[in-house]
Amino acid sequence: MNKGAYSPVPFSDVGITGSFWRERLDTVLSRTIPSQHKKLAEVGILESLRLPEPVPPLVIPRNSHGFTVQVFWDSDVGKWIEAASYALAHRRDPDVEGKIDAIVDDLAKAQSPDGYLNCWYNEREPEKRWTNLRDNHELYNAGHLLEGAIAYFRTTGKRKFLDVMERYVDHIASTFGRGPGQKRGYPGHQEIELALVKLYRLTGDKRRLDLAFYFIDERGREPHYFTQEAIARGEDPKAFWANTYEYNQSHVPAREQTRMVGHAVRAMYMASAMADLALELKDDGLKRACEALWRDVTTAQMYVTGGLGPKETNEGFTEPYDLPNETAYAETCASVALIFWAHRMLHLDLDGAYADVMELALYNSALTGLSHEGTHYFYSNPLESRGQHRRWAWHVCPCCTMNVSRLVASVAGYAISTRDDGVAVHLYGGFKTAAIIGGVRVAIRESSDYPWSGKARIEVDPEAPTAFELKLRLPGWARDATISVNSETLAPDVTRGYATIARTWTSGDVVDLDLPTPAERLYAHPNVRMDVGRVALRRGPFIYCVEEADNPGGHVQALTLQRWARLKTEWRADLFDGVATLSAAAKRLVPGDAAGALYASSPPRAEDAVLTALPYYLWANRETGSMQVWIAEATA
Amino acid sequence: MNKGAYSPVPFSDVGITGSFWRERLDTVLSRTIPSQHKKLAEVGILESLRLPEPVPPLVIPRNSHGFTVQVFWDSDVGKWIEAASYALAHRRDPDVEGKIDAIVDDLAKAQSPDGYLNCWYNEREPEKRWTNLRDNHELYNAGHLLEGAIAYFRTTGKRKFLDVMERYVDHIASTFGRGPGQKRGYPGHQEIELALVKLYRLTGDKRRLDLAFYFIDERGREPHYFTQEAIARGEDPKAFWANTYEYNQSHVPAREQTRMVGHAVRAMYMASAMADLALELKDDGLKRACEALWRDVTTAQMYVTGGLGPKETNEGFTEPYDLPNETAYAETCASVALIFWAHRMLHLDLDGAYADVMELALYNSALTGLSHEGTHYFYSNPLESRGQHRRWAWHVCPCCTMNVSRLVASVAGYAISTRDDGVAVHLYGGFKTAAIIGGVRVAIRESSDYPWSGKARIEVDPEAPTAFELKLRLPGWARDATISVNSETLAPDVTRGYATIARTWTSGDVVDLDLPTPAERLYAHPNVRMDVGRVALRRGPFIYCVEEADNPGGHVQALTLQRWARLKTEWRADLFDGVATLSAAAKRLVPGDAAGALYASSPPRAEDAVLTALPYYLWANRETGSMQVWIAEATA
Repeated sequence: MNKGAYSPVPFSDVGITGSFWRERLDTVLSRTIPSQHKKLAEVGILESLRLPEPVPPLVIPRNSHGFTVQVFWDSDVGKWIEAASYALAHRRDPDVEGKIDAIVDDLAKAQSPDGYLNCWYNEREPEKRWTNLRDNHELYNAGHLLEGAIAYFRTTGKRKFLDVMERYVDHIASTFGRGPGQKRGYPGHQEIELALVKLYRLTGDKRRLDLAFYFIDERGREPHYFTQEAIARGEDPKAFWANTYEYNQSHVPAREQTRMVGHAVRAMYMASAMADLALELKDDGLKRACEALWRDVTTAQMYVTGGLGPKETNEGFTEPYDLPNETAYAETCASVALIFWAHRMLHLDLDGAYADVMELALYNSALTGLSHEGTHYFYSNPLESRGQHRRWAWHVCPCCTMNVSRLVASVAGYAISTRDDGVAVHLYGGFKTAAIIGGVRVAIRESSDYPWSGKARIEVDPEAPTAFELKLRLPGWARDATISVNSETLAPDVTRGYATIARTWTSGDVVDLDLPTPAERLYAHPNVRMDVGRVALRRGPFIYCVEEADNPGGHVQALTLQRWARLKTEWRADLFDGVATLSAAAKRLVPGDAAGALYASSPPRAEDAVLTALPYYLWANRETGSMQVWIAEATA
Repeated sequence: MNKGAYSPVPFSDVGITGSFWRERLDTVLSRTIPSQHKKLAEVGILESLRLPEPVPPLVIPRNSHGFTVQVFWDSDVGKWIEAASYALAHRRDPDVEGKIDAIVDDLAKAQSPDGYLNCWYNEREPEKRWTNLRDNHELYNAGHLLEGAIAYFRTTGKRKFLDVMERYVDHIASTFGRGPGQKRGYPGHQEIELALVKLYRLTGDKRRLDLAFYFIDERGREPHYFTQEAIARGEDPKAFWANTYEYNQSHVPAREQTRMVGHAVRAMYMASAMADLALELKDDGLKRACEALWRDVTTAQMYVTGGLGPKETNEGFTEPYDLPNETAYAETCASVALIFWAHRMLHLDLDGAYADVMELALYNSALTGLSHEGTHYFYSNPLESRGQHRRWAWHVCPCCTMNVSRLVASVAGYAISTRDDGVAVHLYGGFKTAAIIGGVRVAIRESSDYPWSGKARIEVDPEAPTAFELKLRLPGWARDATISVNSETLAPDVTRGYATIARTWTSGDVVDLDLPTPAERLYAHPNVRMDVGRVALRRGPFIYCVEEADNPGGHVQALTLQRWARLKTEWRADLFDGVATLSAAAKRLVPGDAAGALYASSPPRAEDAVLTALPYYLWANRETGSMQVWIAEATA
């Protein structure tokens, strides 16, 4: 292990004792993942793997671009297996394993003798395989299946799926590359690069890393592969329905990119792979590109919730500071993938700025993708609603559903990292692990009521006294944090968001961290035209929203918050599993003198009201109603 | 003439002496209408009437609904002839008449022996005529051609085009109706109803009125014609691309409608026809329906500019108070048609509320559809822009271009109405006419600098002393209006927006009207969630906007206006043809302490700035930049 670099402790080696993630995890294990299997069966996705004769008809008709989402069903299967495997790591379950094994049997049967495996092309359009990488998701599907196979192998040790996928990867590696007779293609939807890095980390087979690097390195070169491929299909490359190669980030080579463009999920998967490769290959060019893209996203293109990609038509980015609230697309998958990317950036360079964004997306734009009861989903995540947005029981493109379940099922993997001479804690909320540090086994137990409280205790328990540094993240939102070791207040070095406590640790050492979590106001950069004159509320890692369920009397957009009104925090044990709400004296605008008039020369009347806000991730779990993150602010 | 009802004086009997409309009219006559003929030729529309063998290919390919805008090119021709005929009424021009005569010759040749006339179906898909009224605009085209024919006949007395169209109307009347063998159809896009009422008024042929009534009365009845027609085409009626018959207002019978829904232009044309029929047939049911729809539109669905229809996908209405600014569709045609409707409502019932909306749309949402130089257009009319909206030199669907030219070319027709014992003046700005009132010829000359000033002088010049009432509209925006007759201040009866001066008028009588026009603020009903905390500016009939050209230093959305800041009016002779601008001390938000951060816990800094606003109709005539109607208001 590179002594300088921290590596994440895998989620399977981290226990969760805190009630917040315990509850989300239990919900995902007991309700979400089983119900997702049911849905996969109900809508025909599992059946589509079996490919009986005759081939069953299209379940979802082709749209006006000649496209059917059925071409990426394999990815849903892969992602579900990945999520279910993470669940199995928490508690083995022969029934779930039986379901996965049945799927693996189907996939093994569906695999072509040459290793190719795609349940759309194999039986429906076999002559078209590898002819439309731009649109048709074969490599994306392969990536998700591979991630599923790796996860299942890691949890159970069963090799069958992994063997199937290694054969498929061999086929892919022989098909694509710069050698004679190979296609110089790369995925239209990036994803497989991440999976290949994972496979390399599992098996040590360097060819997997090389293939991932090739896909990223080849992307966007001229002559453009998607152009040549379209011509080969007899199509006009200019007739590309998305109009621009920015859509899939192949407009210029990956390492030359400085502005985040196009489809947000593709962009985030690509950036995550670039960070992986920068780390594994010490590729400074890729690292610099990642840093430039990071700056662009986080200073000009990210919602205050961590949502990414304002626009529906490209499911992606538009231009700097274009962050409309009610029509925000902000796909759940994009925020999950932002967490992947931030986590990888953090391990390229231990900077709390990465962990801050990781935590922001985790508690807000990603977590809101799953309903409180665990079987309904948001695909897009607006920051304002007049009540038209409701969670889905399923989605025609169910990508987000299993992205959020695999995230929650493995959330503990984002909490702690170690290196030879150190431990770094990124997330609080009741995580514990044990690791070999400086040759000594050290148990680390963090306990807290985080995210509701910022007080955390970290117990350090080495088997023998040993010197190492403990790095504790001080979130960007936290001011005046205090730290004590064995009840003695310290003023440790704080660099780039981490406090470092270097000492010889002995069994029974206790570190107490206190991160004050007052409710506070947030303001957007004035270039965000939609948020001028508006304020958002934050407490700890949560961004809050006002929802009609807590603010009866009409739509919440008529509430205005005085700039100087005191924000009160209240613990509401009766809401969900207990929630800290925020409230303040506010005003509600009501029609003035000209009661029924649409426009009047006198302002609306401002009636006294109480504004109550709850964490954004919990919205739309009760009766239908309006919601808003950015509240109109009155300065008088 | 019904003694109780006022009738509009036709535009051809009203002279324009005021500089505002003189300038717009001169621009339309000398630049807009000629350039439109050129465009019709350039894009192939004129050629499409000639139908040579072989039939020329599609100019604009069918879209994903199997649709091409070429199916409604006939309407563009009709509307251009109508606009050009109005222009000819101002000044005859043999060159223009030659162009119209050439088109009429083509149309006469294209007409089928049975009278049918449609330059798409006739040669391209003759077997499909009258098989898809829902989508394919045949009756809409017929209506616009008929309006063109009537206008050309009225101006020139030439009958050929009118004869062609009367034959076509005969064919339509024999095809549609409740008699044996007739189709019980009606237009998918309402329009012909208006044209048929005009034809009735021209010829007195009651059958034309009956046909118009039939189209309105049959609309929306069950069994639903569009459903039966779709089945007859072998289509699933539920596969209607617009999803709902609300789209074309056939979801319930016209007279049962109380909420304005669907495509805004269709809705406005239908409502105009309903008002026409209510008047001509004394149909109280239609009148009541009009009144209910009027209340709905003007109290819950109209932009402050008079724009209608927020949504692009249906080019129309959504739900009450849903009035987004940057994405406002607010098609120019819809506002032109709102003027038509308001004008008709005003003659059902002389209420200034109708004239107020007519004037609002005229000076704002309709007039902005034409560039200042007269050859560029807005199709949709957002109330906010980051600079992405520019005027079009033409549009793939050029409906709006000629709607605005026919409006301006006939604007004087909205100014004055008469009845046996009265004259009503609705619009000021330099209009003059002469009419027989109580058997005596009376000249009326209104002169003013309106809309820039609210002072108007009305000279009343009867050939012999005669008693009648002069009604002067006091706009809804005007407070503390004063009126004097022959320099003696009066306090006349003011009812529903009109001051009535009843007296025996003698030659040389002079009425002076003073409508104070201070700049003032407007506030939206708090249900309009987008405008909470925002303010609009109005002076006289104009709604103002802030545009980057007058407010350099970044996008105008960062400007905030203090509630109590004084609004200053300034005459700017250097801008366009002279404009009254408004200005005020304001603040411009700039990044605060955390300069580059997207979100910060401290508010942006508010720097002193001067905000300058100009009438909305003039925006986007200079360099590209941001624009906003609803300005963020600071209350401190």
